[in-house]
Amino acid sequence: MLSCFYMNLIGKVAVLGTGLLGASLARALKKHGLVKEISAWSRSQQTRLKCVELKNVFDFVYDKPANAVKDADLIVLCAPTANIPPLAQEIAPFIKAGAIVTDVGSVKSAICQKCAQIFNGTKIDFIGSHPMAGSEKIGIDFSDETLFERRPCFIVPSSFSTQNNVELLEKMWSLIGMRTYKVSACQHDAIVAHVSHLPHLLAGTLCVNASKFKDDLKLFSGPGFRDTTRVASGSPAVWDSIIADNRDEILNALKSYEKDLHTLIAQIESSDSEAIAKHLRAAKKYRDELQNTL
Amino acid sequence: MLSCFYMNLIGKVAVLGTGLLGASLARALKKHGLVKEISAWSRSQQTRLKCVELKNVFDFVYDKPANAVKDADLIVLCAPTANIPPLAQEIAPFIKAGAIVTDVGSVKSAICQKCAQIFNGTKIDFIGSHPMAGSEKIGIDFSDETLFERRPCFIVPSSFSTQNNVELLEKMWSLIGMRTYKVSACQHDAIVAHVSHLPHLLAGTLCVNASKFKDDLKLFSGPGFRDTTRVASGSPAVWDSIIADNRDEILNALKSYEKDLHTLIAQIESSDSEAIAKHLRAAKKYRDELQNTL
Repeated sequence: MLSCFYMNLIGKVAVLGTGLLGASLARALKKHGLVKEISAWSRSQQTRLKCVELKNVFDFVYDKPANAVKDADLIVLCAPTANIPPLAQEIAPFIKAGAIVTDVGSVKSAICQKCAQIFNGTKIDFIGSHPMAGSEKIGIDFSDETLFERRPCFIVPSSFSTQNNVELLEKMWSLIGMRTYKVSACQHDAIVAHVSHLPHLLAGTLCVNASKFKDDLKLFSGPGFRDTTRVASGSPAVWDSIIADNRDEILNALKSYEKDLHTLIAQIESSDSEAIAKHLRAAKKYRDELQNTL
Repeated sequence: MLSCFYMNLIGKVAVLGTGLLGASLARALKKHGLVKEISAWSRSQQTRLKCVELKNVFDFVYDKPANAVKDADLIVLCAPTANIPPLAQEIAPFIKAGAIVTDVGSVKSAICQKCAQIFNGTKIDFIGSHPMAGSEKIGIDFSDETLFERRPCFIVPSSFSTQNNVELLEKMWSLIGMRTYKVSACQHDAIVAHVSHLPHLLAGTLCVNASKFKDDLKLFSGPGFRDTTRVASGSPAVWDSIIADNRDEILNALKSYEKDLHTLIAQIESSDSEAIAKHLRAAKKYRDELQNTL
């Protein structure tokens, strides 16, 4: 097995926040034999009890983040985006020198800037990660060791990150099946605004729009409507904070979409069938290529 | 078996157009034992040969629609929407008195108006149908006897339709697993503009928008982007004609969506977190209810 070669790539990993992403990461790291020990923290007692039950996944479960990070070589912050910098702040004094801290937040400029300040002048290397995996289903109960397979993962080094640490992190995400992309925080935020935040907001707006129609459209919604709106089921609390943290890039994406939509409306209004056909063909071409990508 | 009770509900059915919908309907009718004989026409020789191979589904396969409809009690027009009225015109002289003609077109005002004229003064009862089933995969090769199960089907009687005929058609769609809804053509067109045409056009616009971004967003697109854009893969030719035939209701739907989108943009621009949270919660509530509907 290839992964045996990387047995214990990292000694001790602390997973702070054991929701869908954190618990799935822990499962995947253990499955691939990449770590010796995993310590976990969750703010919820119920979740901590579930972690304790997962004996093959979590070696230690703590009710204080500071205890979980003790002696850890890598700390992964798997909290909602808004909670990541405060969590980093809270654990900073308890992290050993030379450790790497990363996160799984879906916005990077806001998180990386704040964490760079928090770890400035320490011997702790903060490198942002954004494994683009997950679903609208949240919580440890849905955790899955295969969640990350064949999915992209962004890695955002700070200006102080060492090449060794960046490579170690790339290796970790790669070995649990991800394709890694090293990008700047700004580049990341523009990309995810377009591929993740924009679809979410458009899907949500489609639901809001449908909810105002005079008939109950739910009775007539086919797989098309269902798929197009699926992501609107995501947690409003999580999305509140994503919107706050990636506001500028989200606005850029929304406005560029609004412009394209307005163009289409004008084409339909003027029955410009050539332009409409061109639009439909371009859309299909892109979607078909997407189907064949990776 | 319950369906035995309805054995041979209809004597001879002619399916004109044996793409995904037509061939799936034929399979479903035979599976449930609802018809004695099915005759088929396809304009493509290749498809006709495939029909001939499906001996348990199609009893007769013709290269002229006029031949297929001879002696048929029910004729189902399964052509693209723009081709349905010309097809009805072509077969009208060859249909026996007392027969029912229906279609599977996804727009109804345009089709029902034209077909009402074509069959005006004859003893042929045109009743529009729109079984909301299908996928972006088209053609007889993807046909499936379960395609219609648990899906809604609109039935649009004309002002001359007899109650018996409407009930027969309702029974046919119900017995292959559909939920039937009797509506006016206008009501139908507004509903499908919102639940089907709008999602398609929004998904397509999302692809067009993404195709103009500087990085190749296809590398980073997760299940969210994929699901949200899935329907954009539909045939541009089919959609051209849907847009032409349901232009007014599609424009209504697009403009009401554009307004909701603009409201959201303004809320994000002014960081009106209360309004944004309300929008996100309403979207999630609707989508969660949709999940639990039917």
